[in-house]
Amino acid sequence: MNRTLAQLLEKKKSQLHERGIEWRITGVASRRLGWIYDPNGLDLERLSKATSSNVREWLRGAKADVLFESTSLDPSGAQPAIDHIRAALESGAHAITANKGPIVHAYEDLRDLAEKQGRWFLFESTVMDGAPIFSMFREGLPTIQLKGFHGILNSTTNVILSGMEDGLSFEQSLKRAQDIGIAETDASHDIDGWDAAVKTAVLVRVLMGERLQLEQIERIGIRDFSAEKVRAARAAGTPYKLVCRARITECGLTARVHPEQVPLSDPMASVSGTSSIISFETDIFPSLVITENNPGLEATAYGMLTDFVRAVGATGL
Amino acid sequence: MNRTLAQLLEKKKSQLHERGIEWRITGVASRRLGWIYDPNGLDLERLSKATSSNVREWLRGAKADVLFESTSLDPSGAQPAIDHIRAALESGAHAITANKGPIVHAYEDLRDLAEKQGRWFLFESTVMDGAPIFSMFREGLPTIQLKGFHGILNSTTNVILSGMEDGLSFEQSLKRAQDIGIAETDASHDIDGWDAAVKTAVLVRVLMGERLQLEQIERIGIRDFSAEKVRAARAAGTPYKLVCRARITECGLTARVHPEQVPLSDPMASVSGTSSIISFETDIFPSLVITENNPGLEATAYGMLTDFVRAVGATGL
Repeated sequence: MNRTLAQLLEKKKSQLHERGIEWRITGVASRRLGWIYDPNGLDLERLSKATSSNVREWLRGAKADVLFESTSLDPSGAQPAIDHIRAALESGAHAITANKGPIVHAYEDLRDLAEKQGRWFLFESTVMDGAPIFSMFREGLPTIQLKGFHGILNSTTNVILSGMEDGLSFEQSLKRAQDIGIAETDASHDIDGWDAAVKTAVLVRVLMGERLQLEQIERIGIRDFSAEKVRAARAAGTPYKLVCRARITECGLTARVHPEQVPLSDPMASVSGTSSIISFETDIFPSLVITENNPGLEATAYGMLTDFVRAVGATGL
Repeated sequence: MNRTLAQLLEKKKSQLHERGIEWRITGVASRRLGWIYDPNGLDLERLSKATSSNVREWLRGAKADVLFESTSLDPSGAQPAIDHIRAALESGAHAITANKGPIVHAYEDLRDLAEKQGRWFLFESTVMDGAPIFSMFREGLPTIQLKGFHGILNSTTNVILSGMEDGLSFEQSLKRAQDIGIAETDASHDIDGWDAAVKTAVLVRVLMGERLQLEQIERIGIRDFSAEKVRAARAAGTPYKLVCRARITECGLTARVHPEQVPLSDPMASVSGTSSIISFETDIFPSLVITENNPGLEATAYGMLTDFVRAVGATGL
């Protein structure tokens, strides 16, 4: 259950109503709660309704039009998220996920299933929180040819590097990132560049149409970085950033995640802490850049809300 | 007649076909050519078809589904562009314009007319060439509350300032901008900040829903700027930029176009020449920034093409 999303849906109720969109939550599920549903609507404060034992029975019981899937990413695979999404689409519901795993492991299958079912499979929250990356390509940049991109997509490493520039050691900086809720208790997934690589793979598969595998991404993290090295680079005017890059070359697609020393004239140099940036190279725009500075707590849930509006509602100013 | 747009439509023919969109040009009009049409399609290289004497007769003759309006902006008003757009919508055609005048002078009327007619009135090319600003808010940021924005939106003044930083005088830098086709022969519309103010007004009216008039925008241009002043500011690490700002405050909306000295840590400082940037402040994202670097010649026509796809075609990855 995603409480921030439920609160945001409530907060935006009147704006959604203006677009002809009404909603009620008819099912919630989590490891702790199990599968709870009530087709007439659940009161999230007092959950005492029918329970089910599996996703398909639960979707039927809840009479769901839309599934929000927000299990966390399992680096070794993408289950049970893929099963949940598949079950939703097969039951005739739209599927919205904040989990990158299903894209990396089953994007084409899920996209084709959604198309066959006449339903939407959407995932705006998987990269740069809810900043409108996928919708921009889908709706704002039709027929465009994406040749490559580069950017800073992982918050934890960016917060750790910023902390070291501010005088902390690697361990202190990591601990601070954990204290403010940015980094997981086991942050190795971020520190070793896996999260950045997964996001790179998601962007390549969806926006460039190439079936890039994680193993094909050259990946170096920041585990061995000392505060001295990071501060010296900043003092020299070329701070370290963990940069994701992908590009179509004459020899096919190349993709990498590397710490890079970035000149101050590059907008990446100014992107610190939880901010993120991506620069797209296309046939029309040599460089179209999206920067998301200091996203609020609702940013990820907002990405799921925009997917919801796309799936069920009319759009229009 | 917009030759770049016609060429781009041709170049993207197969991608448009994949989306189920076929097109032919059935009418062209310009001061020089008059109103030419052929409902079976015109050969742009050999125009020798029926001519008409006014826009309504011409739209009927051409059996147009879509009008691309690209007359240039007349600072004193927005005719005949408004009449053309109105005629198109009333005849049942979608109306797409690259002219800011109709937005500043008649946005609400034209929007309502389009809605009544069940047609689209679109204008992506009016701000930042074809960078997807309006589509981002329309499709990518539903229910969001825009509190304010700031950015660099006028190329001519930005090219002139960059030129002065490179050692040219104001006059030399203006002449260079004219030689490369950025600045008009009479560049006062740009230099005095009118173009930037018009773009600010367009963004406020469309994205913030406030009927801001041009006269309400505090406007200072760069006419009196010396090369010495510009170079000294850059040397001090706070270069001059002609910055557009609008914000909802406790006392209502305030908007201005002013030369500002921008610190190097601000991404605006790195936006030079024909590049442009805009930072949006919203209830979800404290700062969501779009930067368009060195747009190519097709960027404006591409904005009209994206409007065309929105109006007539299905969208989808």
